[in-house]
This record gives sequence, structure tokens and C-alpha cells, in this order.
Amino acid sequence: MAGAWGRLVEFGVEVRSKVLAFAEKFWRMGADDPRKVIHGVKVGVALSLVSLFYYIRPINDKFGRNTMWAVMTVVVVFEYTVGGCLYKVINRGIATLSGGSLALAAHWMAAKSGPKAEPVILSALVFLFALAATFFRFMPTVKARFDYGITIFILTFSLVALSGSHVDDLTNLTVERISTVGIGIATTVCVCIFVCPVWSGQELHFLISRNLEKLAESLEGLVEDYFPINGDSMDRAEIASKRSHSYKCVLDSKSSEDSWASLARWEPAHGWFKFGHPWQQYSMVGVAMRHCAYCVETLHGCVNSETIKRPEFWEKHLRDVCMKLSSDSSKVLKELSSSVKTMKKSPSVNLLVLEMKNSVEELRISLSLLTEQLPFIQTRPAKSSELGNENSSFIDDRDVAVVLMPLTEAMALVTMTALLIEISTRIEGVVEAVATVAELACFKPIGNDESRSKVQAGEQELKPFHQV
Amino acid sequence: MAGAWGRLVEFGVEVRSKVLAFAEKFWRMGADDPRKVIHGVKVGVALSLVSLFYYIRPINDKFGRNTMWAVMTVVVVFEYTVGGCLYKVINRGIATLSGGSLALAAHWMAAKSGPKAEPVILSALVFLFALAATFFRFMPTVKARFDYGITIFILTFSLVALSGSHVDDLTNLTVERISTVGIGIATTVCVCIFVCPVWSGQELHFLISRNLEKLAESLEGLVEDYFPINGDSMDRAEIASKRSHSYKCVLDSKSSEDSWASLARWEPAHGWFKFGHPWQQYSMVGVAMRHCAYCVETLHGCVNSETIKRPEFWEKHLRDVCMKLSSDSSKVLKELSSSVKTMKKSPSVNLLVLEMKNSVEELRISLSLLTEQLPFIQTRPAKSSELGNENSSFIDDRDVAVVLMPLTEAMALVTMTALLIEISTRIEGVVEAVATVAELACFKPIGNDESRSKVQAGEQELKPFHQV
Repeated sequence: MAGAWGRLVEFGVEVRSKVLAFAEKFWRMGADDPRKVIHGVKVGVALSLVSLFYYIRPINDKFGRNTMWAVMTVVVVFEYTVGGCLYKVINRGIATLSGGSLALAAHWMAAKSGPKAEPVILSALVFLFALAATFFRFMPTVKARFDYGITIFILTFSLVALSGSHVDDLTNLTVERISTVGIGIATTVCVCIFVCPVWSGQELHFLISRNLEKLAESLEGLVEDYFPINGDSMDRAEIASKRSHSYKCVLDSKSSEDSWASLARWEPAHGWFKFGHPWQQYSMVGVAMRHCAYCVETLHGCVNSETIKRPEFWEKHLRDVCMKLSSDSSKVLKELSSSVKTMKKSPSVNLLVLEMKNSVEELRISLSLLTEQLPFIQTRPAKSSELGNENSSFIDDRDVAVVLMPLTEAMALVTMTALLIEISTRIEGVVEAVATVAELACFKPIGNDESRSKVQAGEQELKPFHQV
Repeated sequence: MAGAWGRLVEFGVEVRSKVLAFAEKFWRMGADDPRKVIHGVKVGVALSLVSLFYYIRPINDKFGRNTMWAVMTVVVVFEYTVGGCLYKVINRGIATLSGGSLALAAHWMAAKSGPKAEPVILSALVFLFALAATFFRFMPTVKARFDYGITIFILTFSLVALSGSHVDDLTNLTVERISTVGIGIATTVCVCIFVCPVWSGQELHFLISRNLEKLAESLEGLVEDYFPINGDSMDRAEIASKRSHSYKCVLDSKSSEDSWASLARWEPAHGWFKFGHPWQQYSMVGVAMRHCAYCVETLHGCVNSETIKRPEFWEKHLRDVCMKLSSDSSKVLKELSSSVKTMKKSPSVNLLVLEMKNSVEELRISLSLLTEQLPFIQTRPAKSSELGNENSSFIDDRDVAVVLMPLTEAMALVTMTALLIEISTRIEGVVEAVATVAELACFKPIGNDESRSKVQAGEQELKPFHQV
């Protein structure tokens, strides 16, 4: 008895802890992004508003059971973002009208062919339209814009074409249904747009800006992680290591970018964005960013792969130029990020790109100079002939040791520099993509005074390496 | 008059060419993948079958207008793959039953509280359930499995809870509706499964196998592209360049993989696959493959970036080992691909991996040996002291020229070797992921005789470099 009681208590405790864990997860999700809770409230409000129609006598008497179409519309059409909602509403509207009218035309035609032929003709038409529409849906452009509409088209056409043989007063039914659906749509759109709206376009905009920032962070973190400062506390090293993983968000955000870009086109002007904002071009920035992120991912792998021994001399020699290049590259990305975020043309981005290119040159020259500064270069024939007479074996040893080192030990370092250079090339692609967005979206230049002071600051910052 | 006629003819020709181009595109889409046409036909057939119910007197008399629910179900539930269809059917079923019964319970409770409180209680409940369900949907695990079900749950709950105040005989309505929906579901599932079915699982399976093959192709093509054989015809070079782009499919197939993996879990046993086949593990193979493809993409960029001059000596020295490594790596990938494709445990994959590792070692050793064979190593202090007296300036020139070359000119080559090594490391990750799939899915070993001969062939092929 005591054993059974114990097991029961144990079971109760287990259930309680599981429920608590679940509740906590649920709570944290809401606390992290309260807009999700607000979305839930919005759906509830829209449904409650529509449900009022059931209880208001005059409306209810007029539409009767058709009021259910209003509820159905709200549930089916309400989406998280305004773009998603409008995409469904517009698709549904066009599809219902075209499907309904085509079905009425089919009815009229079938009715003229006599009562025997009517069902055959109608069934054949339903078959043909369903086949064509379903196949049509596979076209990528159609799928991106009208996927939902095509479902509704087939639905409406079949329902009207087939139900016609039962309901005599089709026109009346249509008018009633359209008005109830209209009530549902109006409620949904109003609640969606006017109560804490979530705009697909804005989400995309900030996602792109945030991802640019993250890519910059990742690049800095990676190089900091590779060249730790000796006095670094563990915390800083850990932070650098954590930051170096930020690129993963960029790799994973393709599908969000694509879906937001395709929904954003349905949205009206909002905030800073006009109707017809170049959302598709944002996807191009995403593509350029991912092109860059692939390289950062590889760099991450190469840097963290087991390297035999680090050639200290090379590392010392290259540390500063590598860190400068990575910091310059990430400066460009951060500038792009803030330019996108504020929708202002950055006056300094070209200077920063120039500086980045300078750093690439500097790194290239460092690499060529490197060998000259190496011990075995100091033992050139002129000198070595002198030394050679004294202790040639010593030089021989050092010579071979140094010469053998570069390719096996320094491979990771050479690869890192090569990848940093490749990344800077790819960043130029991102700069171009953002410039196209700025052009198409008419980004405003920063106010004259502000811009002049920023340019001057930029010029002061920029010290071409050959003048240093 | 003649001008207007000319313009009209021109317009007609233009329209004709556009229509023809569109029709051709349409036709090609169907010809490329006839299953898309078949899917269209299947939807048409299912709808026509259901529409028969409208014309069969006894059924029609029994269910009346509710027959429209059968049509609606077919249109909404019919999906391209069996998995998609079953996902919707099962979600819809569970959601309708749970939503409906909860709504009936709510009704019963509300009816007990008196006619004044009834609408208030019902509206409040609709609000609360809609809020909770909508929020619940944001949980990633719920979204992946029950997204559609939650829509239907809210829909059913609201409709039944609100319509209750109008329809007295709720139970009767429910029974009728469930039977018509059942007819729709039965028709859809039968047509979907028994007429040329498209299985999500099978699609995923072959996608993974195809992508492994493509990655292998890409790797071979890239290295062939970098080290063209002198007597190569333009055609071969073009083919290599084309093949080197195959990795793009791997990068772009994340969303297909994820959606197929999540739909495949709803599918019953089919072909070689049991119910509960480890579809999620296929996604892991996809992840490992993409991890590899990022590196291949970077390699592609590095190889094709403008390099100053190619250090001929190095290239000659490294060509064979690089090509051997890339060919060994792609052999591993091809073996994995055929192992996945045929669902047979490959007896030779471990040998191939060993061979690949050997090639990596070979490449590493070649790199260290490289410097010894270079001209400036031949001018070691011992010798240079002799030569130094004769013409030290000549040696000095050559010395510096050779030393400067490696890092600036050979950077691309060194990077390529480093990336090839990194790729081979990542391929080991793919091997592990496929091994887990083979373990979980109980891949059959190849028949004893067959396997023995293959192992022998593999052993003959495998010549560790230190024995060569």
C-alpha cells in the first residue's frame, strides 16, 4: 500500500514537473516575442466581433445560416502578417469571383443542352478546370503568387457548378454569400491592419539589416578567436567564440526571406515603405549575403580544424594585417546594415570599401614581404658564404626547418588569408546588391551637414597603407 | 487604313508568339515531369467521382445540401504527395472531432447557465480557444506537425459553438456532415494512394541519393576545371565547368528536404520503406551534405577568382595528388549515393574512406616535399657557398624570385589543397550520417558472394601510397 502510494506520488511529481516545464517553455515563447500573444488576441477579437452577427437579430434574420461563412472566412484568412492576410484576401476575392462567374456561365450553357446532357457537361467541365488549374499551379511564378487562389478557384467553381442543380435561386445565394464573406474579410483586414500590425516588408527589412550585422560580428569573432590576445580573459575568448557562430542565422534565413519578400508585395504603403518597394531586390541582398556566409562557414571550419603547430613568426607578422582586414570588412557590413536599417544612403561606404581593398593589398604585400623577413632570407648567398665557412650545418638545419614549415604548418594561416580576401571580394557583391536596393527604393542621402562631417571623419579614418 | 491594318497584324503576330511561348513552357513542364499532369488528372477524377453523389438520388436525398462538404474536402485535402494528403486528412480528422466535441460540451455548459448568459459564455469560450490555439501554433514542433489541424480546430469549434444557437438538432447535423466529409476523404485517399502515387518518402530518398551524386560530380568537375589536361577538347572543358556547378542543387534543397521529411512520417509502408522509416535522419544527411557543399562553393569561388600567374612547377607537382584526392573523395560520395539508392550496406565504403585519408596524407607529404625539390633548396648553404663565389647575384635573384612566388602566386593552389582536405574531413561527416541511416533503416548487406568480390576489388584498388 505504501509502495503504491509512493509510486503515485512519484508519478504526480513527474507529471507536475513536465507540465511546469511545458508551461515555462510556453511562457518564455510569449515573453520573448509578445507579438505572438497579440496575434492570438487579434484572432480571438476578430472571431468574437463576427460572432456578434449571430446575436444581432436583423442581420441574422437576413442572412440566416450563411453567417457561418463570415466565421469561416475569418479563421481561414487571418494570418500573422498583413501581407499574408492581404495575399489570402485578394487571392480569395479574385478566385471566388472568377470561379463563380465561370461556373454560372457553364450552368447557362449546360442548361441549354437539355436535362440529359446537363450533368455530363457540368461534370466534364469540373474535371477539365480542376485538371488545368492544378497543373497550372506547378508553374513557379503562379505558385509564388496565386497558390491559394487556385485552390479557392477550383473550390468555388466545383461548388457552384454542382450545387446549381439543387438551388434554383443561384443569384440570390451568391449575393448573400458574398455579403457574409465580405463582412468576414472586412473584420479580418481591419483587425489585422489597425491592431498592432506585423508587416512582412518591415520584417524582411530588419531581417536583412540584422543579418548584415550578424555576418560582420561573425567575421570579427572568427579572427579574434584565431588570434587571441595573450591577456584575454576567458570571458572575452568565449564571447568571440560565440560571436563567430552568428553566420548560421544568415545561412538558415533563405526561406523566411523568400516568403516575406513574396508576401510583402501585397502590402500597402506603411511606415517608410511605399507600395511597390523593391522587396524582390532584398532577396538579392540575401543571396549575396549567403554567398559571403558560405565562405565564412568554410573559414570557421578551417580555423577550427586541428592544426599541427602554429608558426609563431608568421602569426605575429600576419596578425595585424589579418585583423585589420577583418575589421575593415566587418565595418563595411556594419555600415551597410545601418544604411539599410535607417534607409539612408551611406556617404562613407565607398570609402570603407576602398579601405577594405587597401587592407587586402596590405595583406598581399605582407605575404610577399613575409618571406624576405624570414631567417633563411637573412642567410642569403652573400652572407651565407661567409657564415658557411664557420658553421654551415647550423644554417642548413635552420634553413630546412624554416622552408619545410610554411606549407604544412602555415597552411591554415595561408588559407585563412586567402579566404579573408575571398570574403572581401564577396562583400563587394553585397555592397552592389545594397546599392541597387538604395537606388530602387530611393534611399535619402544623409542631411548635408551630417554627411559632410561623416565624410570628413571617414577620410581621416582612411589611411591608405602606402602613405602610412 | 493600311497603317491601322498593319498595326493590327503586328499586334496579332505578337500575341500569337506570346501565346505560343507560354504554351511551349506549359508543354515542356508537363513533358519534363508527367507526374504533374497525372496529379491534375487525379484531382479531376476525384472531383468527378464525388460529383456523382449529387446525381445519385438516394444519397442526395439523404444528405441534401451537405453533399457540398464532400466536394470541399476533396479540393482542400488533395495534395501532390501521399504524405501531404494523409497529413491533412489526419489533422482534419482529429481537429474536427476534438473541436466538435469540445464545442458540444461548451454548448451543454452554456445552456445550463440560462439564455442570457449563453451567448456571453460561448463568445468568451470562442475567444479563449482561438487565442490559445493560435498561440500554440507558434511552437516549432506543433507547427511542423499540426499547423493545418489547428486551423481546422478553431474553425470547427467556432462554427459548432456559434451555429448551435440556430440549429436545434446539432447531433443530426454532425452525423450528416461527418459522413459527407468521410465520403470526400475516402475518395481522396483512394485516388491519391492507388492511382500513380507520389510518396514524399521516396522523393526524399532519391533526392538525397541524387544530391550525393551531384556533390561528387561537382568536386570532380571543379578539380578537372582547375587542372585542364593539355590535349583537352573544348567540349570536355565545358562539361567539367558545367559539372562543377552541380553543388548548387545541394545548397538549395534544404526546404524540400525538410518538408518531405516532415510529410513522410505520415505515410504508411510503401515500396522498400516501412512505417517509421528514419526520415528525420535523412535530414541529418542533408545537413552534413550542405556542410560539405558550403566548402565546395568556397572552393569554386577560390578556384575561379583571378589569380595572377600559376606557378607551373607547383602545379605539376600537386596536380596528380590533388586529382587523386578529389577523385577518391567523389568515389566515397558516389558509393554512399548508390548505397542509399539501393538501400544496401556498402562493403567498400570503409576502404574508400581509408583510401581518401591516404590521399590526404599523400597530399600533405607532397606539400612538405615540394619545397625540397624547389630550385632554391638545391642552392643550400653547402652548395651556395661554392656557387656564391662564382655568381652570387644570379643565385640571389633566383632565390628571392622563388621565395616570393609561393605565397602570392601559389596562394590559390595552397588554398585549394587546404579546402580539398577540409572537404574530405566533412565527407567523413556525411559517411557517419549515412551510416546512422543504414543502421536505423536496417539496410541489407550485399549478398555474400557479391560482397566478397567487391571487397576484393576494393582491396586491389586500394594501394596505400607508402607501398606504391
